[in-house]
Amino acid sequence: MRHFLDLASWSDDELHALLERAGVLEHTPSTALTGRVLGLLFMNPSLRTLASFQSGMSRLGGSSFVISPGRGSWELETRLGVVMNDVAAEHVREAIPVLASYADLLGIRAFASGTDLQADVEDRLFHQLAALSPVPVINLESAIDHPCQALADWKTLDDLDVPRQGGRFVLSWAYHPKALPLAVPAAAVQFAARRGMDVTVLRPNGFGLPEAVMERARSAAAAAGGSVRESEDRGEAMEGAHVLYAKSWTAPADYGDAEAESFRRASLRDWCVGESWFETAAKDCRFLHCLPVRRNVVVRDEVLDGPRSVVVPQARNRMFAQMAVLEKLMASKEIAS
Amino acid sequence: MRHFLDLASWSDDELHALLERAGVLEHTPSTALTGRVLGLLFMNPSLRTLASFQSGMSRLGGSSFVISPGRGSWELETRLGVVMNDVAAEHVREAIPVLASYADLLGIRAFASGTDLQADVEDRLFHQLAALSPVPVINLESAIDHPCQALADWKTLDDLDVPRQGGRFVLSWAYHPKALPLAVPAAAVQFAARRGMDVTVLRPNGFGLPEAVMERARSAAAAAGGSVRESEDRGEAMEGAHVLYAKSWTAPADYGDAEAESFRRASLRDWCVGESWFETAAKDCRFLHCLPVRRNVVVRDEVLDGPRSVVVPQARNRMFAQMAVLEKLMASKEIAS
Amino acid sequence: MRHFLDLASWSDDELHALLERAGVLEHTPSTALTGRVLGLLFMNPSLRTLASFQSGMSRLGGSSFVISPGRGSWELETRLGVVMNDVAAEHVREAIPVLASYADLLGIRAFASGTDLQADVEDRLFHQLAALSPVPVINLESAIDHPCQALADWKTLDDLDVPRQGGRFVLSWAYHPKALPLAVPAAAVQFAARRGMDVTVLRPNGFGLPEAVMERARSAAAAAGGSVRESEDRGEAMEGAHVLYAKSWTAPADYGDAEAESFRRASLRDWCVGESWFETAAKDCRFLHCLPVRRNVVVRDEVLDGPRSVVVPQARNRMFAQMAVLEKLMASKEIAS
Repeated sequence: MRHFLDLASWSDDELHALLERAGVLEHTPSTALTGRVLGLLFMNPSLRTLASFQSGMSRLGGSSFVISPGRGSWELETRLGVVMNDVAAEHVREAIPVLASYADLLGIRAFASGTDLQADVEDRLFHQLAALSPVPVINLESAIDHPCQALADWKTLDDLDVPRQGGRFVLSWAYHPKALPLAVPAAAVQFAARRGMDVTVLRPNGFGLPEAVMERARSAAAAAGGSVRESEDRGEAMEGAHVLYAKSWTAPADYGDAEAESFRRASLRDWCVGESWFETAAKDCRFLHCLPVRRNVVVRDEVLDGPRSVVVPQARNRMFAQMAVLEKLMASKEIAS
Repeated sequence: MRHFLDLASWSDDELHALLERAGVLEHTPSTALTGRVLGLLFMNPSLRTLASFQSGMSRLGGSSFVISPGRGSWELETRLGVVMNDVAAEHVREAIPVLASYADLLGIRAFASGTDLQADVEDRLFHQLAALSPVPVINLESAIDHPCQALADWKTLDDLDVPRQGGRFVLSWAYHPKALPLAVPAAAVQFAARRGMDVTVLRPNGFGLPEAVMERARSAAAAAGGSVRESEDRGEAMEGAHVLYAKSWTAPADYGDAEAESFRRASLRDWCVGESWFETAAKDCRFLHCLPVRRNVVVRDEVLDGPRSVVVPQARNRMFAQMAVLEKLMASKEIAS
Repeated sequence: MRHFLDLASWSDDELHALLERAGVLEHTPSTALTGRVLGLLFMNPSLRTLASFQSGMSRLGGSSFVISPGRGSWELETRLGVVMNDVAAEHVREAIPVLASYADLLGIRAFASGTDLQADVEDRLFHQLAALSPVPVINLESAIDHPCQALADWKTLDDLDVPRQGGRFVLSWAYHPKALPLAVPAAAVQFAARRGMDVTVLRPNGFGLPEAVMERARSAAAAAGGSVRESEDRGEAMEGAHVLYAKSWTAPADYGDAEAESFRRASLRDWCVGESWFETAAKDCRFLHCLPVRRNVVVRDEVLDGPRSVVVPQARNRMFAQMAVLEKLMASKEIAS
């Protein structure tokens, strides 16, 4: 029985098969999951993930239910061994096996704590949650990964014929009024490296991704014929770029220190992607973002409303990538049982 | 490809076909939307619209998903060109095309701003939102219209054999502790006029519907053989009435001036519909209200619990009217593609 | 047409048929409710009930919709005859018939008021709500009953081969930081008595269940060949027990007096179930709880994580028990119509 917790647990052949199947599902109906039920546990808000999983599951002939702790369901405790005399009325040690007992597959979203960098980089909470489920688990975004997003992003680049080996992928930090998680940038740098691209992480001082994340990306790049480097110089980083993937994230250097982090971010409001960023890029350099995105804070209207933005097809690909994953996990469960 | 934004864009023949189909769907199963997905975007609360669309879509063999910004999904920005450094994390310019990309049809609810009468009467926001969707859009209530309600109301009067030409329809303002939108009264006066009825808008001073709304209703009445007039005199307005449609709405005369509007409303608590209102009406005059309704504030128990109230069958007709619309829009989309 | 408001309205033969059918549905697919729609009205939070009914309805080929007043839908008024000038925008007298008009079956959750013991013990509100529905109603937990839980609990004991006559069932009060409803303990004592077991209610002074609840249980026990008694002595109560069913509940002696109740509860923190409680019990005594449960407040980790806890299979049985009820009510409706 397989889970879908990260791309790293899936071989190149398996990922290519998922991508190929996603392309087929984009154009061809399937009733592979007729009568099957997907449980969706959202510890944090969602728009795309919620809508695309519910729609995708329906399109495969199945159905889904949604549980949102604190929004019509009990607040959930995740810490082990605690005396639960606070707001949480239920523990994940009961909630997850119970929800799994009603479902054939279980999706879980649990964002980072934002306080313990080591724990978050190791995705400790998410692995603890996933281990509680007797049915296949899909990571709907954890502390350090968002594999459904990464698979959709990969398909998006394939759809656009962006080169694999030799393709230049820039992941750029952008300003945001809040300290945001590391999950999407970690997933993006990992999938682009694994796709064989030449990856540059463009970010201000203090915003370098955690060494463990960079090391995983460098290993993936080495195996795939690509490369990974970091830069603070926008013009140099963007030179010849085929893809600019923008995202804000919290400063790992100040992880868990909200005041210091906020102070570091405060002076970086000019990290808002505009057309001028693309001067040294390849002519048809694409703009990607996982959404939601704050207009004229993270990226200017001129980019989002212009021809290089592919954020809507990128989001649309979430559905097809996830449908391929749902089919595959269900098949793996049936073989196991 | 058709949208369902208002009744005005639909010809008499088309409306009659929808009403006829709604009547058939009330008694005959259909699987016309098997495998189809309806996206529902609720910027404001709902009970009937949510339940009737979800149930109706299921009864047609399809399914639906629900997104409620600020309730498990990101707050959405609707203004163009703004710097998004406030609470809204996502713009409708991304959210709507993305949700539409997961759906075959998209329903949107977006109430009036309540501050700019001209913009609300022109339904500027809603038309801007609808224009962002590449799939057919259904108006689940906008600033100035609620066509699903109007179609259900029309069916309700047909079901009850209320006369078209010569039928006397009174839309009456009623007291409510809050300033409520103009959408339902505007939709009601419009559909009743278009149905060929003699329409009276009964309301206190300052609560006359906007001139553009009245003018549209007068045009519709002229074409259909009916009439539209206004009155402040309850006994006179109700004379010979076949239908009393009650609804509270904000004072257009004080639009956007909460204090003045509240002061004007404060002395009108006697505008609570009771049996005494029907003294001069036709013998079996019916009581309609779109719901939700505040008992003994908008209307007394004696009316709601008495034989003239048809508010439950009226609400039930929402489902059948909407099922006819869903089928029709899906067919129009398939022809277009 | 049948409702499922309590177990008392169902004969032994009928209950046994439901339990048998639940066992079949655990292993065999059914499409008995294809095209049918279940409405779910939650006046209070839920995790298991929401997920198990949505999944169960899907597994039977049908679908469901969820309305949560105050969470995306209007607050509902339940009192009769009031002037609705407070927060509630809609009355259950409209909301329930309307939701029922979109559904084939209607589930309703409405917890106790907690202020009027007599009204709550008689389940006055719930019977008033159920009477408003023209379609079969399922009690998703009312002031004094939770028959879906009781049916699932009964199946759980059957699955484990816990003896009926001669089986020793202990319902124990446990500490909790909040005053909790009487519904689950009332349902548990009733089903265990009806199953023919020897039932002991173990609870501190002031926490004795209402006399009407005890009397109903004693009658059921008399008819089924079992017994019902009360005790404050843990060691004595647990002697030879086959089942410990733990649950916190408010002190009936202080019903509606929050301060006195809180004071009475404050000194009872040692009523947290631990392994030491089982010293005099039967060797393989099982631990049941309806969930959600506060770990190390109501029960220690050592029990929940040990071999005697069956809380997850117990929760899983909710789905199969409810599927049997859904099928049965739908069949009864079709015969009636």
